[in-house]
Amino acid sequence: MKFATEYLWFDTDRPREYINITDDVARVVRQSGILEGMVLVSAMHITAGVYVNDAEPGIIRDIDEWADSIAPQGPDYHHHRTGETNGDAHLKSLLVHHQVVVPITKGDLDLGPWQQVYYAEFDGQRRKRLVVKAMGE
Amino acid sequence: MKFATEYLWFDTDRPREYINITDDVARVVRQSGILEGMVLVSAMHITAGVYVNDAEPGIIRDIDEWADSIAPQGPDYHHHRTGETNGDAHLKSLLVHHQVVVPITKGDLDLGPWQQVYYAEFDGQRRKRLVVKAMGE
Amino acid sequence: MKFATEYLWFDTDRPREYINITDDVARVVRQSGILEGMVLVSAMHITAGVYVNDAEPGIIRDIDEWADSIAPQGPDYHHHRTGETNGDAHLKSLLVHHQVVVPITKGDLDLGPWQQVYYAEFDGQRRKRLVVKAMGE
Repeated sequence: MKFATEYLWFDTDRPREYINITDDVARVVRQSGILEGMVLVSAMHITAGVYVNDAEPGIIRDIDEWADSIAPQGPDYHHHRTGETNGDAHLKSLLVHHQVVVPITKGDLDLGPWQQVYYAEFDGQRRKRLVVKAMGE
Repeated sequence: MKFATEYLWFDTDRPREYINITDDVARVVRQSGILEGMVLVSAMHITAGVYVNDAEPGIIRDIDEWADSIAPQGPDYHHHRTGETNGDAHLKSLLVHHQVVVPITKGDLDLGPWQQVYYAEFDGQRRKRLVVKAMGE
Repeated sequence: MKFATEYLWFDTDRPREYINITDDVARVVRQSGILEGMVLVSAMHITAGVYVNDAEPGIIRDIDEWADSIAPQGPDYHHHRTGETNGDAHLKSLLVHHQVVVPITKGDLDLGPWQQVYYAEFDGQRRKRLVVKAMGE
């Protein structure tokens, strides 16, 4: 049985940003030598998400505006009594989910033609990370 | 270590449809001979979802109406500048998530009494697929 | 290859409750002797969720109020024609998702500093359970 664990770091220019990490995940899998298995891609912060969707710039803007309409930035979160200002980012993380599992088949990511793995930063401009964990044979 | 990979294909009559695939997933697991492990069920399109919930027809209608109220069909998506018309389906996919992992215990799906695995088609009437990947011993 | 399967039971005082189960999940992993792998934490009911987020009481209240604004308790669900009254709880389960996978690295949960695993009860005051399934080596 083989395992690979790698941490990807991000420090975005903007508070909210969407970064295509498909190639990074594919590289971890290829370097692991795993031919059959699964790879977990999981944010290690509670104000970020990981999702699978399209690389088309319009849909990325739609996702951003949609997430901000469902979980709007604003002052009125109980969480802000701690001095924090990122209550919305916690809810956005729950909305899109913080992780995906990608199947590994014949040594590569078994994704559909338009599926790309995205890191969704909802409270950026500081160093944050996610874990890529592959497991198989 | 054992693996099984199978692709399920769909071509729905309606644009949005909810298909109970529990028996298909259970069949893949039984045929694999895996007694302990996990099975990943993951849509391979970015306009479909996979979720675990109830087979009761009323709740399926509730889920459909709810998803369409949270991510409504309509003309006003940036994504539509590409000529596409399915922006809502991308967001619905994020809302319900595109995948689940079901534990395998004693050779069968380890689900609660009311849990059923559903394929949620949000942009149908064409051939689409999902991957079932089981892994264990 | 090693496996561990454990069921956690809940019987909450209130209809909606958020229970930190990180220590329970970590205990299952440590007792399993698994050093590298993954652990699935998955609700076995269709009116409960499992998510990873912060233990800060304010954000838990925000999550509760947010979930109830996105999928409000109320009489107007088709599901209620069956005599049920918990349509909202099904939708809340879909919203926050019913499961997470936590990577296991060096024998312990590989979580970020603020990440805690939560059981989200959306229709409580009765006995319900979730499954913790660890797998690895």
